Amino acid sequence: MSKDSVRIKVSASVANVSCGFDCLGYSLEEPADILTITKREKPGIEITISGTGADSISTLAGRNTAGKGILSLLTAVDQQLGFTVHIEKGIFPGSGLGSSAASAVGGVVGVNLLLGSPLKPSELLIHCMAGEAAASGDFHADNVAPALLGSIILIRSYDPLDIVSLPIPENLFSTVVLPELSINTKKARALVPRHVPIKTAVEQAGNLAGFTSAMYTGDFELLGRSMIDLLAEPYRQELIPGYHSVHQASLDNGAIGCGISGSGPALFAFSDSLETAMKIGLAMEKAFKHEGFVSEVYSSKIRVEPPEILD
Amino acid sequence: MSKDSVRIKVSASVANVSCGFDCLGYSLEEPADILTITKREKPGIEITISGTGADSISTLAGRNTAGKGILSLLTAVDQQLGFTVHIEKGIFPGSGLGSSAASAVGGVVGVNLLLGSPLKPSELLIHCMAGEAAASGDFHADNVAPALLGSIILIRSYDPLDIVSLPIPENLFSTVVLPELSINTKKARALVPRHVPIKTAVEQAGNLAGFTSAMYTGDFELLGRSMIDLLAEPYRQELIPGYHSVHQASLDNGAIGCGISGSGPALFAFSDSLETAMKIGLAMEKAFKHEGFVSEVYSSKIRVEPPEILD
Repeated sequence: MSKDSVRIKVSASVANVSCGFDCLGYSLEEPADILTITKREKPGIEITISGTGADSISTLAGRNTAGKGILSLLTAVDQQLGFTVHIEKGIFPGSGLGSSAASAVGGVVGVNLLLGSPLKPSELLIHCMAGEAAASGDFHADNVAPALLGSIILIRSYDPLDIVSLPIPENLFSTVVLPELSINTKKARALVPRHVPIKTAVEQAGNLAGFTSAMYTGDFELLGRSMIDLLAEPYRQELIPGYHSVHQASLDNGAIGCGISGSGPALFAFSDSLETAMKIGLAMEKAFKHEGFVSEVYSSKIRVEPPEILD
Repeated sequence: MSKDSVRIKVSASVANVSCGFDCLGYSLEEPADILTITKREKPGIEITISGTGADSISTLAGRNTAGKGILSLLTAVDQQLGFTVHIEKGIFPGSGLGSSAASAVGGVVGVNLLLGSPLKPSELLIHCMAGEAAASGDFHADNVAPALLGSIILIRSYDPLDIVSLPIPENLFSTVVLPELSINTKKARALVPRHVPIKTAVEQAGNLAGFTSAMYTGDFELLGRSMIDLLAEPYRQELIPGYHSVHQASLDNGAIGCGISGSGPALFAFSDSLETAMKIGLAMEKAFKHEGFVSEVYSSKIRVEPPEILD
């Protein structure tokens, strides 16, 4: 017998990951959104939202990333069912941590489950992307893919959509620091130049290939040397007060590399132990504090599991 | 007792390798240049050349890639010795198969050996690059690095110089077809746009990362999907009569992927067996023949060894 209701926890994610602008992202353990989805008699999708930044998110199904993702899925599987969706936001919108992506994934995965899983996880990706487009206005997979599938995901191509799940070295740890300041994602995108010198394109490709190699070999020296973004980060730094001191604080405390998570304001860093990851978090938090911003810190391994079904 | 003379065989190489424009290259078994280098009393470098295309190559040390590479090495190790260098060209200049790079590598490796190996192979790379610059007018490593070190080499960065030797799947084979037509490398470079849309840069990086992943996992489907060049090949195709039919012939006969070798006119293809590699070679040769061009065909594994010391 299929269930009538499901609770699902979907984690935040870090997109871009320095050299992987628009084509790389990884999943975190925390923070996360929790979605409660229930079948109902009446068609249509009724959305309620609580938690961090809930006020800023539309509850109209067509303008909400969970709602729009669900509508995309229902169209694909030709279902007219109705659902109530409650989103308990744990990921602050505009944080650079894939807040809208997490809700989109939760909606799509939850409804697919309630329908008896007509689609495989990889087949849900396109609907999660359609959902997230409600917030970003564009189709991206670098947050939804890791949130949906776990791990660190390379989007090799968008047309056709082609993703590669990279292996994660055993002792790789992530630190994310989220300061209490908001970035407008569209503004952050507008700062990025539309064209780049071909030399820059070659360097960016070299760095992403070096990063990819390091994921297979665990060569953290190469990983660190490869964690340079030439396409977006040089232009987006200015939106994050204290970027340079926070970045430097991470490296001074043992980070392999550090960069802006998505379009910010969160920053992420990689390190080789949980102890170092936590030490880096404290140092980055302190550096933001020095600029007048309180931060949240999240240190963990990269999450390899898909979203957790709570009940 | 150190030797007074050395004979060394240096293989051709395939640069760019589709998605790795200016940052990827691999070593072939054939064709190859053979250099005979002998110490002499008098300082200075005396160069003689025989073999394919010998007439088109300068014998002035400062304008010859072997000569210039040797001069760069001698300056670095502070030596004033003189050498006679005979280059037996097996790699046709302007073929897109790293002809000038092979001679540069032969000169540098040979003289380093005659000096008692003061530098390690990886330390010779910069002098090989200095040598090759005599022909290309610019510093590149995508031919000299594989010719010097063997295997398939990613140049992650030029400044600082940082190379990564990628693993080669057991059953990966290379086919190279060289038609009898000449391409001016500088003209081929001039065809490549100086700026690219950022979307193109992201796609190119995604493909190179996909290629890199496939080298570690042996996923030939992913390898094939990743072997697309967006930076140079779309513009250089026009310089090679029959490019489209030769390219198609390779794919129709089982090639994983196919592209221009360096700036052409040679084309290379990857496949999963020697039998298929040879079949692809015949089909590509036939397609060039149809355009009125005779070709040479070389099918083998990627060469993993450094240059061979003959005696």
